[in-house]
Amino acid sequence: MTADTSEEFKKAVVSPVDDGSGVVRASVDFPASEPLKLDSGSELGPFTIAYNTYGTLNAAKSNAILICHALTGDQHVANINPLTGKPGWWSHLVGPGKPIDTDRFFVICSNILGGCLGSTGPASINPATGKSFGLNFPVITIGDMVEAQSRLIDHLGIDQLFAVIGGSMGGMQVLEWAARYKDRVFAAVPIATAAWHSPQNIAFHEVGRQAVMADPEWKRGDYLDQGVVPRNGLAVARMAAHITYLSEDALHEKFGRNLQNRADRTFSFDADFQVESYLRHQGSTFVDRFDANSYLYITRAMDYFDLAAEHGDVLANAFRGTRTRFCVVSFTSDWLYPTRESREIVQALNAVAANVSFVEIESNAGHDAFLLDEPEFFATVRGFIESCATRRGLPLAPIADGDA
Amino acid sequence: MTADTSEEFKKAVVSPVDDGSGVVRASVDFPASEPLKLDSGSELGPFTIAYNTYGTLNAAKSNAILICHALTGDQHVANINPLTGKPGWWSHLVGPGKPIDTDRFFVICSNILGGCLGSTGPASINPATGKSFGLNFPVITIGDMVEAQSRLIDHLGIDQLFAVIGGSMGGMQVLEWAARYKDRVFAAVPIATAAWHSPQNIAFHEVGRQAVMADPEWKRGDYLDQGVVPRNGLAVARMAAHITYLSEDALHEKFGRNLQNRADRTFSFDADFQVESYLRHQGSTFVDRFDANSYLYITRAMDYFDLAAEHGDVLANAFRGTRTRFCVVSFTSDWLYPTRESREIVQALNAVAANVSFVEIESNAGHDAFLLDEPEFFATVRGFIESCATRRGLPLAPIADGDA
Repeated sequence: MTADTSEEFKKAVVSPVDDGSGVVRASVDFPASEPLKLDSGSELGPFTIAYNTYGTLNAAKSNAILICHALTGDQHVANINPLTGKPGWWSHLVGPGKPIDTDRFFVICSNILGGCLGSTGPASINPATGKSFGLNFPVITIGDMVEAQSRLIDHLGIDQLFAVIGGSMGGMQVLEWAARYKDRVFAAVPIATAAWHSPQNIAFHEVGRQAVMADPEWKRGDYLDQGVVPRNGLAVARMAAHITYLSEDALHEKFGRNLQNRADRTFSFDADFQVESYLRHQGSTFVDRFDANSYLYITRAMDYFDLAAEHGDVLANAFRGTRTRFCVVSFTSDWLYPTRESREIVQALNAVAANVSFVEIESNAGHDAFLLDEPEFFATVRGFIESCATRRGLPLAPIADGDA
Repeated sequence: MTADTSEEFKKAVVSPVDDGSGVVRASVDFPASEPLKLDSGSELGPFTIAYNTYGTLNAAKSNAILICHALTGDQHVANINPLTGKPGWWSHLVGPGKPIDTDRFFVICSNILGGCLGSTGPASINPATGKSFGLNFPVITIGDMVEAQSRLIDHLGIDQLFAVIGGSMGGMQVLEWAARYKDRVFAAVPIATAAWHSPQNIAFHEVGRQAVMADPEWKRGDYLDQGVVPRNGLAVARMAAHITYLSEDALHEKFGRNLQNRADRTFSFDADFQVESYLRHQGSTFVDRFDANSYLYITRAMDYFDLAAEHGDVLANAFRGTRTRFCVVSFTSDWLYPTRESREIVQALNAVAANVSFVEIESNAGHDAFLLDEPEFFATVRGFIESCATRRGLPLAPIADGDA
């Protein structure tokens, strides 16, 4: 994100707008008198949460699904992203007649606290100074993100969410929701995630943060006020992270050792290989849509995530007494959040006799599989939602033609 | 490496010095009249190769073992490294009575072409300009490194090496030696390596290169002449690479989510976790011993490595007619050069009915296992060398007490 695009960002979150495409874009301001009490002990207020909704909340307010986005995701889950012009990041999963059916459910997706697409984050103006927070923004946790979301759900007048669904860091939020608000979550779908961030994942995040902080244009976090952007550092961070989102098999199939628009090696440091060119592109386009400090804060929140540690080092304690129905999903080739980390969640749920299904989806797409059109994954989500909807006494789905 | 340490570097390679510790440190200058013909088509000359030897060459010159070092290794395989003060990188494997027994074998290890510890590389003075080569150094290949080594072996008057041994990029050199100089290699031990560099590995290297090049102190490769060093960029590159050298299990065992000298999270961007602190240390110490442009050139050489492509896209062709005895070694938890890539080498050797043993060593240390004290690995190397020595008509080993 360049300093110049902040106006564009603001335009993207004007509230509330129903542009006829089925999405309502909105944001809600929580006043300084109702600050967020953070896990660090400090308070944050006022603060804003930007969010999108799709579909209609029923009279009983029993058909709301909260979707939690991942590290670099946003609230534009099923509409054209106003910043990038690309389809929403889960637009094949969420929409009319889709597995998360916006004809039947009221779908909510909010930009996380600490994000950079309308919710309060390090790029926001600090009311105490009139300048961007930068590093004066408090370090937040996944729990803080969920607290902020719960304020939004209060604001929408919803007591219990029918479902909370998310992948990767979104899955961490799902677990935190289920642990913090047992009575407010009827069903939970944590996908391609873990109950704690592994040392390898912390390590990759630390590399990314150091890349950003090594960029002189980062200006110790103060770049927005100085009118610059640590483009190079953030691009390197994104490149390193992007490798972890793909499986080695996916890299073989996508690129192999193919050269990029050339017949032979150039014997230079040009992007000879397609995989190099692809990564450079991933790095440079990311910088146009994401704030570097947000990247620091959000990766830090993920590193800090350890649901067992929050509950006396026993993960099962997080779920004791839960009546939520869980569907835990992992992907075979995901090495960032491997299946064994999903099994740990399932084991903890089993230990408290929770209602849990677990599906490991065969895919060679790596961690990114949760964002792709994976038929078995879609069928799993659809089936789980149907069965929970029946239990919840929601109307049956119309006969679907198409995916099953 | 800072500009100031270049004197220290020069001291480290004065030639030839036998300091009584059993190592002879030397270097040889090849004149401009005998340039190296590079794979790129250009020529490099004059050039220097710095090398160490251990033990005594027998009269028949039949007991020489060439050890090839990895990306950030050097010729100080079994002596105290004069730059870091640390033991040689394979000092537990190479020495009197050790699996590579310097009481019986004449062990040679040279700093690779493109390196920064005495052999000609991008930090060397370009005789055409009187300044460091920087990016005027030609892009080289693994084959070029081996060509330069072969000049050294010629210089030492050795027709046939008893063995060529190396891990990681050292293993690539072993394979290239066996392919280029079939009659000069009696036995070959490629360890934790591959016959071609995978797209995932290219991707990680590209991230490292971009991190270096993103550092304004890199000065488009001209930093040495401008009296600066791209410390931050090179440190980030090293951090990213270092993660790939360890297995996830090793990271769990070494660090887990343990905090570094603190009772709780600091809610800051300090190195709260041990794994962060460890990585930062790896990054910052690396900069003191390695040249950033060397890092670019050597990673590029690895990316370009594809032994099959050099032989009509059929790997077996590289070994057709070979009489070399091979011992291929991989490690179970090495995800940088996974066992399946070693199997491809073995299959190619089988296809030409070569003499090959293959051992996959059980280890949870990741790629780094090849540098560690792994008893099964040591026993494998010792056993293979013994059997080859018998075949070669070299004297039997004295009865060993200790490792088997």
